[in-house]
Amino acid sequence: MKRKELVDNIRRKGSFLCVGLDTDVKKIPQHLLNDEDPIFAFNKAIIDATAPYCVAYKPNLAFYESLGVEGWTALEKTVKYLKENYPDQFIIADAKRGDIGNTSKLYARSFFEHLDVDAVTVAPYMGEDSVTPFLGYDGKWVILLALTSNKGSHDFQFMKEADGMRLFENVITKSQTWAGPEEMMYVVGATQGEMFKDIRAVAPDSFLLVPGVGAQGGSLEEVAKYGMIDDCGLLVNSSRGIIYASSGEDFAEAAAREASKLRDQMAALLG
Amino acid sequence: MKRKELVDNIRRKGSFLCVGLDTDVKKIPQHLLNDEDPIFAFNKAIIDATAPYCVAYKPNLAFYESLGVEGWTALEKTVKYLKENYPDQFIIADAKRGDIGNTSKLYARSFFEHLDVDAVTVAPYMGEDSVTPFLGYDGKWVILLALTSNKGSHDFQFMKEADGMRLFENVITKSQTWAGPEEMMYVVGATQGEMFKDIRAVAPDSFLLVPGVGAQGGSLEEVAKYGMIDDCGLLVNSSRGIIYASSGEDFAEAAAREASKLRDQMAALLG
Repeated sequence: MKRKELVDNIRRKGSFLCVGLDTDVKKIPQHLLNDEDPIFAFNKAIIDATAPYCVAYKPNLAFYESLGVEGWTALEKTVKYLKENYPDQFIIADAKRGDIGNTSKLYARSFFEHLDVDAVTVAPYMGEDSVTPFLGYDGKWVILLALTSNKGSHDFQFMKEADGMRLFENVITKSQTWAGPEEMMYVVGATQGEMFKDIRAVAPDSFLLVPGVGAQGGSLEEVAKYGMIDDCGLLVNSSRGIIYASSGEDFAEAAAREASKLRDQMAALLG
Repeated sequence: MKRKELVDNIRRKGSFLCVGLDTDVKKIPQHLLNDEDPIFAFNKAIIDATAPYCVAYKPNLAFYESLGVEGWTALEKTVKYLKENYPDQFIIADAKRGDIGNTSKLYARSFFEHLDVDAVTVAPYMGEDSVTPFLGYDGKWVILLALTSNKGSHDFQFMKEADGMRLFENVITKSQTWAGPEEMMYVVGATQGEMFKDIRAVAPDSFLLVPGVGAQGGSLEEVAKYGMIDDCGLLVNSSRGIIYASSGEDFAEAAAREASKLRDQMAALLG
């Protein structure tokens, strides 16, 4: 999906919400466990209930890989279901991959040709030739980890060079020489809203994928205040707060309610 | 597998060779494509031919994931075959994973419980809570990316803090406060042999997994000269140089020949 189409969807729906499909077989409602494919059954119900309120879905690969072949099958079915029924949804494989060139090329094929999602999250540690194999696919995106929302982000991402640039700023600055804001976004955690000022200083035009709102404690208002640009430039992810809003038979309605609340807040922030 | 057992295997076999199972369906011999599962058929033949000369196998997940369910099945069959027939082989899932805590926990389960390999490679960018969920499994290992063998390693890994420590040294130093040398190793590329002096200055007791010998240009002698410690402390990986030594029907014999050559050099270096 191209940037213009994504932005049109955001404006039309009054939403920059991404729903994280972190589907854990241990957390889904009991009654679904009788289904032939409980993970897919859960995802399908969540998608049908929340699609009017969001513009993107983000399955985190760990949740599918941890089930082996069965999980991988559920993931493929979920992506296929989205593409056939909700072609206006931007699909992000949250994989945090990154390897030497010929290997990253295979990951790129895996996500952009085989699975055919719109974007994949990539870890920057191995540098340019681990990232560039993901580039150059028409309408596909790399979402590079810059500043993550977890406690451990302070271990290395804030490491400061002699000239004063921190690692996450260095990642953002250098990677913009590899790809422009039409095919590269950044993961920026929401746990400290004011950090978005520093991010916008080095990435004025890029879309940011923002985890950490909700369960992880970030504030949507602060993210919008410091991070929003003319064409929005934000995708805010919520996973647990939406998909596990209820553990009963009403889980899909509860998810819709939570997604709808966030959409209303976002519509107001979009003005 | 515990460190003592790994070291015993290295001494008994006169080898610290790891064979990289980077199995690409486009590169395996034509005649295997008629097999029901060509990837597994190739791996099985390579393993049977090379097992006497190596102590470890390292499937890179990208090669399997890029085939979806089919690839994941071939990977599971390969690991099972190794465990049943060559229980003295150390199995490394080269996955370069790393995510927020609850997600890394799922990756850990995927690799250590479901797939049941001995070690998994982990990317350090997200810091402590992305790595520690992989720790505490008896006899299982984290192999943390420190200094990789690709060109892009120079983009961020050499970034120097005000006090003079480079990112890869910072990663090694800090991560040793999370886990000792009985359950954490480091990936250190072999392309510059002298760098092993700097690595040993900060990781005197740790095992190092060394890619980049052979196809990527590193020298085995230099790695041993600067990197070897009392109980060896090295696993040197070769992938393409062994598994694609011949593209004909003699591919397994050719792989055995190349692995045997490296084993002979290693036996001499072990003294």
